[in-house]
Amino acid sequence: MMAKLLDVGAFDVYFTPIQMKKNRPATKLSVLGNPQARELLTKIILAETSTVGVRYQTWQRTIMKRHFIVVQTAFGPVHLKVASYGDLEKKTPEYADCARLAQAANIPLMTVYQAALAAAGQTSKEK
Amino acid sequence: MMAKLLDVGAFDVYFTPIQMKKNRPATKLSVLGNPQARELLTKIILAETSTVGVRYQTWQRTIMKRHFIVVQTAFGPVHLKVASYGDLEKKTPEYADCARLAQAANIPLMTVYQAALAAAGQTSKEK
Amino acid sequence: MMAKLLDVGAFDVYFTPIQMKKNRPATKLSVLGNPQARELLTKIILAETSTVGVRYQTWQRTIMKRHFIVVQTAFGPVHLKVASYGDLEKKTPEYADCARLAQAANIPLMTVYQAALAAAGQTSKEK
Amino acid sequence: MMAKLLDVGAFDVYFTPIQMKKNRPATKLSVLGNPQARELLTKIILAETSTVGVRYQTWQRTIMKRHFIVVQTAFGPVHLKVASYGDLEKKTPEYADCARLAQAANIPLMTVYQAALAAAGQTSKEK
Amino acid sequence: MMAKLLDVGAFDVYFTPIQMKKNRPATKLSVLGNPQARELLTKIILAETSTVGVRYQTWQRTIMKRHFIVVQTAFGPVHLKVASYGDLEKKTPEYADCARLAQAANIPLMTVYQAALAAAGQTSKEK
Amino acid sequence: MMAKLLDVGAFDVYFTPIQMKKNRPATKLSVLGNPQARELLTKIILAETSTVGVRYQTWQRTIMKRHFIVVQTAFGPVHLKVASYGDLEKKTPEYADCARLAQAANIPLMTVYQAALAAAGQTSKEK
Repeated sequence: MMAKLLDVGAFDVYFTPIQMKKNRPATKLSVLGNPQARELLTKIILAETSTVGVRYQTWQRTIMKRHFIVVQTAFGPVHLKVASYGDLEKKTPEYADCARLAQAANIPLMTVYQAALAAAGQTSKEK
Repeated sequence: MMAKLLDVGAFDVYFTPIQMKKNRPATKLSVLGNPQARELLTKIILAETSTVGVRYQTWQRTIMKRHFIVVQTAFGPVHLKVASYGDLEKKTPEYADCARLAQAANIPLMTVYQAALAAAGQTSKEK
Repeated sequence: MMAKLLDVGAFDVYFTPIQMKKNRPATKLSVLGNPQARELLTKIILAETSTVGVRYQTWQRTIMKRHFIVVQTAFGPVHLKVASYGDLEKKTPEYADCARLAQAANIPLMTVYQAALAAAGQTSKEK
Repeated sequence: MMAKLLDVGAFDVYFTPIQMKKNRPATKLSVLGNPQARELLTKIILAETSTVGVRYQTWQRTIMKRHFIVVQTAFGPVHLKVASYGDLEKKTPEYADCARLAQAANIPLMTVYQAALAAAGQTSKEK
Repeated sequence: MMAKLLDVGAFDVYFTPIQMKKNRPATKLSVLGNPQARELLTKIILAETSTVGVRYQTWQRTIMKRHFIVVQTAFGPVHLKVASYGDLEKKTPEYADCARLAQAANIPLMTVYQAALAAAGQTSKEK
Repeated sequence: MMAKLLDVGAFDVYFTPIQMKKNRPATKLSVLGNPQARELLTKIILAETSTVGVRYQTWQRTIMKRHFIVVQTAFGPVHLKVASYGDLEKKTPEYADCARLAQAANIPLMTVYQAALAAAGQTSKEK
């Protein structure tokens, strides 16, 4: 169901544990998407879950600008997502790259992740 | 408190575990109701909980149409809620019926529940 | 980060455990503040967390009126927050006062807390 | 199901929200009971839930001694549970009493609850 | 990380949201496995997460006996897991089968799921 | 209460949101400590919370060896905790150092954190 929602263009899908009446533990499904996708997302939710109703609200958003860079590590090249907002900049190594290189080198994913961050830090200083 | 809110017309009431400042674990109370019931629901919440404030928002909703059918099982008749939206239809055995028949027959509730679903499936094919 | 948000005027900050796509457990950050503080709060959130986006919504609120009273307990004076809404009134002993007196007297915090409530109850009857 | 477990002697039953493999939000059921009740509790859990397995462990416990007292409030008499351990003593007004008196007087439950605590505090000082 | 743990033989892996000291929201990782796999599972956890320690305990288990049956639905054949314990028997349609048939017929997964349960109920009565 | 438990030697203290009988949302308190501290920790828990009972279990542990190193960043020196187990090694910048330097330089904590990781990565290669 989560996959179907993301396939048709949901920005994000997440679950929140809640406690309902009659002592029932339950899970709240939250889906973020374009207003244009509302009808389609609603149909999927009603078809694929046991719920009989969906609620909507409009949110505003501030999203950081994003682009990708590549850094070289001892284990191979890793993409980093660079997110910027004004003079703020954050770099995040791509999970898939780190996982692939970690598996190839038979080392922990975190080692590759930190190597990518370190390489990106070096790059920054060179600017 | 949950009972009072439902008594005066809240559509739904649920709790979400949250973590507040000063390291305090807490519970967020969410109440869904008609805008006309807002003042009454607010008073109950302020009176019956330790909170000193309530926040409101207006939501839109899509609710499936609902009616009830009865199916015969080996354990007795069971109501099912039939929810429909366009050509989508979902059937859910009523919990109270299943619980009562299960207790009478001294069998698990799930056995009655599945028997009701099976009976409803048969009914569907006959249409 | 929570401290920074509260420092610049957030009314409240809380975390909700959620479950995101790709099987990732996560935490949703919720910040309540004045619309005027929106840009400042956004910058802090983007700078101090790993998120790349922030969503906003306007809420209405009903807040109880609040003032403080002091009651005498066997352990010393304790402030109580008195919250009122129409003819509803709630009294809550101040945590910091109770904690300080409890530590000084080497007794459980709850003993001081209940003593303060008892003293406040007496006060009420005298009105 | 919770009711059935408590009926046959479970000391306590509670749910914990968890996140399982394959991105499934789930609920962990925890049941505390006597070792002698283990087989019976297991059968109920397997019959009434969708789980196919149950895990067990032995715990030790420290339980406070408990007895009940009655205090007079402006709204009527309220039982309090008095729990003691060494020289530590805690008093908790009985929820059912407070709820009944609150409903009868058409006042918030918390008002009765705090009145009972206040009355118990008075009683303590008289000792 | 979850995938690695399951690959080397963990019976189950799940996350629980917790709240740690210093106001930090966190996630507790629980892994169930054979005592023989303990060292291997420990290494993976220490390598792939940010934790610096792992705790262990031995649990006993009651597991229902399981076998598979196939039922015919209007959408195609579906496997059901049949779990039994004494005279208790539970049938659960296989998720993967239902998902595949639902996608092929372009219908909700729940429709296939309920059809499989209905078919299994019919089968039961014929015994 | 959390502070008191840590003061007397608890290794760790955490909260888990749970759902109890009678529809009550609740919080489970977990405390890890030496068996010798058991009586003292129990007294604090019983005195400072509303619970009337405490349960115990013995766990085994694998803890990584830990020592500290200092790295130089553009913002000042940062301690890193180096945890090792066999040939596995993980480095984590100390939160307090990063927070202090970030505040002094008026920059996001994450910038200092990543700079420390980058510096530590450089150090590693030089070995």
